[in-house]
Amino acid sequence: MSTGEFELRVEKLREIAEEYDIDGFFIVSEPNLRYFTGFSTLAIERLIALIISTKPAEPILVIPKLEEEKAKKLSFFRDIRTYTDDEEPIRIVSEVIKELNLTEAVLGIEDSLPFKFYRMIREAAPSLKIKGASAIFEKLRSIKTRGEIEAISRAAEIAVRGIKAGIESIKVGMSEFSIALEIEREIIESGGETMPFCLVLSGENSSLPHGNTSSRKIGKGDAVVIDIGVTYRGYYADITRTVFVGEISGEQRKVYDAVLRAQEEAINSVKPGIKACEIDRAAREIIREAGYGEFFTYRTGHGLGLEVHEEPYITQTNETILKPGMVFTIEPGIYLHGSFGVRIEDDVVVTEDGNEVLIKMRKDLLII
Amino acid sequence: MSTGEFELRVEKLREIAEEYDIDGFFIVSEPNLRYFTGFSTLAIERLIALIISTKPAEPILVIPKLEEEKAKKLSFFRDIRTYTDDEEPIRIVSEVIKELNLTEAVLGIEDSLPFKFYRMIREAAPSLKIKGASAIFEKLRSIKTRGEIEAISRAAEIAVRGIKAGIESIKVGMSEFSIALEIEREIIESGGETMPFCLVLSGENSSLPHGNTSSRKIGKGDAVVIDIGVTYRGYYADITRTVFVGEISGEQRKVYDAVLRAQEEAINSVKPGIKACEIDRAAREIIREAGYGEFFTYRTGHGLGLEVHEEPYITQTNETILKPGMVFTIEPGIYLHGSFGVRIEDDVVVTEDGNEVLIKMRKDLLII
Repeated sequence: MSTGEFELRVEKLREIAEEYDIDGFFIVSEPNLRYFTGFSTLAIERLIALIISTKPAEPILVIPKLEEEKAKKLSFFRDIRTYTDDEEPIRIVSEVIKELNLTEAVLGIEDSLPFKFYRMIREAAPSLKIKGASAIFEKLRSIKTRGEIEAISRAAEIAVRGIKAGIESIKVGMSEFSIALEIEREIIESGGETMPFCLVLSGENSSLPHGNTSSRKIGKGDAVVIDIGVTYRGYYADITRTVFVGEISGEQRKVYDAVLRAQEEAINSVKPGIKACEIDRAAREIIREAGYGEFFTYRTGHGLGLEVHEEPYITQTNETILKPGMVFTIEPGIYLHGSFGVRIEDDVVVTEDGNEVLIKMRKDLLII
Repeated sequence: MSTGEFELRVEKLREIAEEYDIDGFFIVSEPNLRYFTGFSTLAIERLIALIISTKPAEPILVIPKLEEEKAKKLSFFRDIRTYTDDEEPIRIVSEVIKELNLTEAVLGIEDSLPFKFYRMIREAAPSLKIKGASAIFEKLRSIKTRGEIEAISRAAEIAVRGIKAGIESIKVGMSEFSIALEIEREIIESGGETMPFCLVLSGENSSLPHGNTSSRKIGKGDAVVIDIGVTYRGYYADITRTVFVGEISGEQRKVYDAVLRAQEEAINSVKPGIKACEIDRAAREIIREAGYGEFFTYRTGHGLGLEVHEEPYITQTNETILKPGMVFTIEPGIYLHGSFGVRIEDDVVVTEDGNEVLIKMRKDLLII
């Protein structure tokens, strides 16, 4: 992504800030730092903060001295201030707040800001007004640029290769763990950056929407749900497929058919101008009509980007109106507790006149 | 671990609280919740809070309704209050603060407490005084009980199996990733709960103390540094071994010898009553005498427990006095940038009259 892209993000943040009467931002969370700076680091205990005034002044990045080289190489920010391990960052934060004329301003912070940094800001500039600003970041990040959609698409390609390798490896008697390792091997070889989760759930385990991959051995007649998350340049793709081993019962077939129709109908409903909850409704109605309404216990999907769960959430109650550039999962499921479960999940981007599915992989019934 | 163990932890917290003039605690971080309740969950967005008065009143756990069953099964707490997805937890937090007579008290919170929960506490009880209490939790958790040491020892056993499998798999031409997958397979089969990190760094990659496992292929004459973290019941073991492939140069031998002597001397110095910095000094002096002082760029070790980095840190400046029950790593290293690196890491517990090494694995020079 180019420098221009990051400058544009700061510009858009300033535009939205006006609606909220905020004069500046103090950003420390990993996904938001990555969004605005393009570089990512695991500071853990140490402060890394991006301080942005809504006035046209250069944003200032405050980082530990150790990270300076990396930040200069990877980020477009020109004004980088460092502190060493022997210093407390409060002095430098205080200076920056003064320079940006924010000492008496309304400063927008994140809901996740750790208390120790909150206290530091309070001490550095006691006259500041502090205001939660997470909603602004969520709103901004929910509309993806072309560069972001490309990164998600690339992650999706890699995820598809991984899940295909997993499905091809399935044999009766093999453990869920072993299938997960095959997927991991393929993801690594395909250039996936990280695979933050990889669920392989078979038989009765597949009936738990958030079960854990285990040493359970695959048996004939099992449903196998595989759900993986893969990142590329920090951006997530998230995919689920369900396959059957050796044979399929009448009920398994009926459930698979209902989930597939619900998922396809929900995708077909995606276009600019409709509400997130209308997509959920499209999926939920089909599952209800098939007689499994009470077994679809979760939301239909969630936004995807630098976080695996972000806006827009595709729930029964979210009234957010879809706009071009929003990316989210559509993943209805039916979970028959103690017996089996089926989930099918694709990632979808809202386009100017409809949508595009970013996961390019078959999802018709597969018995292996 | 028994109910008694968790009750004892709350008792000890109350004892330490007296020294700090704190009347109650509001605990939300994953490791601290796990420490006091014995159960772990990934609430992410939702509040899970343990509220403890220093007076002899039953602690109260506030959790989402969804988690109630799990909490009742896994924790010894009798007083569990739940809220549903449609409710804000502030009402229940406000009630609990009143019941525990904490409305005008000094409430100890964690440095990591997210701003949104800080704001919620402020609104729920505006007359409360809020005080950072992370140091109290760190102090308490730095002394491990027998049950905790057993869990770390079990994690260490599993980690040793994993690293042995990795070393045995090494062949010229094999990638670092493939070795990491062999380690993962063994860890899973040995009953490891999670392996939060697995670094396999070969050749010039081994000269980066925190490099990333890559597709680099192992070559003859490479140093291979393997550093893995494994958990069992939430408790970490952390181990590093360095081996050489096919042949060894004079300098590699000299560096390995210096690191091994430094590591052993540091371990020999561990006993109750000495300061953490004295252990660091023991290791650092040997490496300096060998002529590699400037290439030992990191601290000698860090505490281990429910977090992979916790008190006591074994640094040049930490004056903390060692006490029986403290567990930490000893991992000196020499990193010759662009050429190779060597690190040897064991986990050590302070006993009544000295120490015990929890990693039971050879560390003499190994050329494979």
